[in-house]
Amino acid sequence: MSLPKTYKTLISTVTEDGQLRMEMVEKPMPVPKSDQVLIRVEAAPINPSDHGVMFGYSDMSKASNEDGALVAPIPPMGMRMMKGRLGQALPIGNEGAGTVVAAGDSDAAQSLMGRTVAAMGGGMYTQYRVVPVMQVLPINEGNTARDGASSFVNPLTALCFPETMRNEGHTAIVHTAAASNLGQMLVKICKADGVPLVNIVRKDEQVALLKSIGATHVINSSDDDFIPQLIDAVHETGATLAFDATGGGRLASDILTAMEGAAARTPGAYSIYGSIHHKQVYLYGSLDPSPTMLTRGYGMAWGVGGWLLPNFLAKAGMETAIRLRQRVANELTTTFASTYTDEISLADALNADIVARYNAKKTGEKFLVNPQL
Amino acid sequence: MSLPKTYKTLISTVTEDGQLRMEMVEKPMPVPKSDQVLIRVEAAPINPSDHGVMFGYSDMSKASNEDGALVAPIPPMGMRMMKGRLGQALPIGNEGAGTVVAAGDSDAAQSLMGRTVAAMGGGMYTQYRVVPVMQVLPINEGNTARDGASSFVNPLTALCFPETMRNEGHTAIVHTAAASNLGQMLVKICKADGVPLVNIVRKDEQVALLKSIGATHVINSSDDDFIPQLIDAVHETGATLAFDATGGGRLASDILTAMEGAAARTPGAYSIYGSIHHKQVYLYGSLDPSPTMLTRGYGMAWGVGGWLLPNFLAKAGMETAIRLRQRVANELTTTFASTYTDEISLADALNADIVARYNAKKTGEKFLVNPQL
Repeated sequence: MSLPKTYKTLISTVTEDGQLRMEMVEKPMPVPKSDQVLIRVEAAPINPSDHGVMFGYSDMSKASNEDGALVAPIPPMGMRMMKGRLGQALPIGNEGAGTVVAAGDSDAAQSLMGRTVAAMGGGMYTQYRVVPVMQVLPINEGNTARDGASSFVNPLTALCFPETMRNEGHTAIVHTAAASNLGQMLVKICKADGVPLVNIVRKDEQVALLKSIGATHVINSSDDDFIPQLIDAVHETGATLAFDATGGGRLASDILTAMEGAAARTPGAYSIYGSIHHKQVYLYGSLDPSPTMLTRGYGMAWGVGGWLLPNFLAKAGMETAIRLRQRVANELTTTFASTYTDEISLADALNADIVARYNAKKTGEKFLVNPQL
Repeated sequence: MSLPKTYKTLISTVTEDGQLRMEMVEKPMPVPKSDQVLIRVEAAPINPSDHGVMFGYSDMSKASNEDGALVAPIPPMGMRMMKGRLGQALPIGNEGAGTVVAAGDSDAAQSLMGRTVAAMGGGMYTQYRVVPVMQVLPINEGNTARDGASSFVNPLTALCFPETMRNEGHTAIVHTAAASNLGQMLVKICKADGVPLVNIVRKDEQVALLKSIGATHVINSSDDDFIPQLIDAVHETGATLAFDATGGGRLASDILTAMEGAAARTPGAYSIYGSIHHKQVYLYGSLDPSPTMLTRGYGMAWGVGGWLLPNFLAKAGMETAIRLRQRVANELTTTFASTYTDEISLADALNADIVARYNAKKTGEKFLVNPQL
């Protein structure tokens, strides 16, 4: 099989004159080195975590198309925050899957020829991508590139929540935006591993969805009695750790308030400084970009902070990473099955109308890029 | 010397009908057990950390006197938060100093007879107090009860900031409300121990005060170019840890923004997820009771949380506590000298007009209760 001389790939650039510019460029086909493989990318999800590099701090409400490129103005504050990437054409798309169509001369690389593999390494919104063998996850026989497209970000993030829980001495978890692909994986993992989980969603149909896959505690934050329900669930599970995908607003603070309310149910525990056991909320996403508001009515033993998969994995070490990746490969079409509502081409991914749809980040909507379309 | 049969002491109660009630009561003189001493309390500071037990979540703007007691209404939300202390007469005043006027029959207790000692154990706004020998810090000869009144809360808190810094892998500190008694102690400790310190104050005269005692970096948050100044100082010191006494508003967030801005000055460090080194702000006070606002423009490697001296000391262990207390005793009138602007009686501490003055928690104003007045 002969390969084309060039391939198409998407890049995102912050220009000197205050524009975000996302466009398709043509590049010469690379030749894999000894320990590398060349993947023909056939499926790459658009995750919320991809939006940062794609759109940065630009004003996407004013995005439009210019000669096929997507352009959006960047307010002065956004320019200050993105000074570090000025003029750099950044590749986009954290993860994806496809077929190995060329391989370096090492045995490890050669053994992957023709195999369907997943990879996380950035720049996956592209027709072809060279990746070191070490970063590749071979997909089990019978599974497709679409099955394997989301093998890293969501599965590993979901697996690392209970890992974090155990490492930091907690015994149960609260999760927000829990009806997401990631949230459904977490329900299955916690059920299999016996970890009590409190799921927070925003709609009744999401409550039904999570209950249908085995969730025990599902709470609708739109309910009038959301906080009392949350206190009950936190009290029943003993959760003192939460992972929040929304980031902004009062949700993280409300969860801490509920944890403190649950702790206060233990008789004789009152102290002006609140309960002694540390209560932690990690913000791992920013679906709500508004500021985080902390009311602080939960004593002194609490923390709120950012949580990022690569930072956690770097601390957890290679052995943990290998164990978790093997579990993903083994349970790819069960625990870690992803569903996509739209499949789009590289050109579609630049279309302002389509961008507006996937940039809305609605729970239940998930876009897959197929660079071969 | 014969002791009176009774003594006067202050208590604070949340009543069933929604009132905060702080009052003076008379109690029978206690007799110390074998390993206890009876202290005639002569000096006890009013620290911001005392206000929690004293006033709770009452509406102090509506405080008034009734038959010598201080009363203030409590809004419904405050009542919910203080459910755990309903009807309990809580003793007030975390720390203080005085003379040992009776002692149990153990050698340790007997050796303290007649000595001036400091103690932290709550209930120090009182004429007499029985305390276990283990909780007592004997004041060096020549130092008075007034010298030793603030031997615990501020000195140990200030000493534990660099301890926290070392334990958590940071190398410099940012401190807010830095012109306080505690802040001045921290300036001296950091200077002696070679710890780079960035002091944030709100007035020019506070800048001058801290520079006069040897502070290198002092920044006025009222300056128009506060943030650029802060970025410079954080960059020069390499501070990735802050202790914030204000708690509310945007200050904690601004400090994280400055830390991220300083990190971004290192060439080639740009990542959409921000700098990798963990940036931490601990809120150890609540001078500003409004919600904490986090803008989150500082990547993912950050944390904000409560910090409480007893929780830290419990984790740090006995050896550390003894080492730090010895340093306080040795440097009581130098590093740990406190200054008081007002000395008041127990009755004064209940006077609504005087309460309004010390409840304002103005930096530079510090009240001392002398229960023998």
